[in-house]
Amino acid sequence: MNEYDCVCVYSGGLDSATMLADSVERYGADRILALSFCYGQRHKKELNYAANLCIEYGIDWKEIDITSINQLLPGSALTDDVDVPEGHYAEDTMKSTVVPNRNAIMANIAIGAVVAYGAVVLRLGVHAGDHPVYPDCRPEFIAHLEALAKVANEGFIKNTFYIDCPWLYVEKSDIAARAVDLGLEFDMTWSCYKGGEHHCGRCSTCVERLEAIDLAGYSSIDTTRYEDDQYWKEVIANANN
Amino acid sequence: MNEYDCVCVYSGGLDSATMLADSVERYGADRILALSFCYGQRHKKELNYAANLCIEYGIDWKEIDITSINQLLPGSALTDDVDVPEGHYAEDTMKSTVVPNRNAIMANIAIGAVVAYGAVVLRLGVHAGDHPVYPDCRPEFIAHLEALAKVANEGFIKNTFYIDCPWLYVEKSDIAARAVDLGLEFDMTWSCYKGGEHHCGRCSTCVERLEAIDLAGYSSIDTTRYEDDQYWKEVIANANN
Repeated sequence: MNEYDCVCVYSGGLDSATMLADSVERYGADRILALSFCYGQRHKKELNYAANLCIEYGIDWKEIDITSINQLLPGSALTDDVDVPEGHYAEDTMKSTVVPNRNAIMANIAIGAVVAYGAVVLRLGVHAGDHPVYPDCRPEFIAHLEALAKVANEGFIKNTFYIDCPWLYVEKSDIAARAVDLGLEFDMTWSCYKGGEHHCGRCSTCVERLEAIDLAGYSSIDTTRYEDDQYWKEVIANANN
Repeated sequence: MNEYDCVCVYSGGLDSATMLADSVERYGADRILALSFCYGQRHKKELNYAANLCIEYGIDWKEIDITSINQLLPGSALTDDVDVPEGHYAEDTMKSTVVPNRNAIMANIAIGAVVAYGAVVLRLGVHAGDHPVYPDCRPEFIAHLEALAKVANEGFIKNTFYIDCPWLYVEKSDIAARAVDLGLEFDMTWSCYKGGEHHCGRCSTCVERLEAIDLAGYSSIDTTRYEDDQYWKEVIANANN
């Protein structure tokens, strides 16, 4: 059986890709298991990006299919035929993209991997910007998750196990800056909720990504192709009025 | 969207089938959603039993496929080509059937259903006899799970939500007696780890089932067919020496 020190939940997006690059620096690529979850996204694009970056870094990668849970989850914009909301990452539009308890489900599967492989750290890419809208991205959630993992797997999980969320108190623009420090090209990551050939530039994650890269001062080196690379400015200007 | 008051995690086995029958009495069949998990069991027999009993009671039932997690879980007797251990439900043989964090994974998916359908109670069929061997069957685990569910889904889960484990402090023989009280026939449930036409009578769950039904004083009305209905007595006699 392979053994790893670090299990990363990794979506292929900017936050978790930067966490993965940071993990390579910290643990070494051969000590990391990266897990990506397929939950019936409209497209597999972000999973392809996830797989490719792991090949690039030489990290073992597994795709876990939890599509079956969608039977339980009516009305999600990510998985059903509801329109993906455009615009700012604001509370109202975000709620429709929340699959109930999704982070807890994925984290608990990853904890299963931690136990199976004797890892000591689980890394999750949740970041500060998500707190107001996703209750399962808050520090209190992470603390409860870690406590549950220890109780649920007593005698099977390492006593030194902990959950590390390097972006928990970090703004997305600082994550974008860290990506550049680590030599991670933005166009090796996929953020868009839509499944087009290129990033749409208009959905809430595209707007958030473009804003963060701009705030970090790295728009000029972002080689990602966006169908619309101007719309986000309008959204931000409106949000600030 | 359908709404339910009660979500039951239901395997098709004696404990959870009795919990389901008890739930019908308590909540009414039309207020219950029963969830069964497929995690690559050697056989689908227990899922067929699960489906059939739900039809009998008129309970909505969904099968959730989490087979994909087996990629993470080497060496499990339930899911890999490891021999199913025979004999008493003792600590050493039990450990090989534990899929890391499995109860937490299934419970968190069920909590997703609780949130999606606005239910107030999640029922799990874990019972007292499991505590010594499965850390994720202990009261402390259930308390942590409930706390996590509330934190992870704040604003989305009912404030009155709780996890109810009716068998948490109950011996398996009392569960067997309760099944009879509720009019649940033993042969409407499937316990055997093996996928034969009938219960094998020799694997640890068959031994545990036969012992419990005997202790309850109901062996004479158990119409379940066992390939070997004597072996368990030998196992119990040896365990008591």
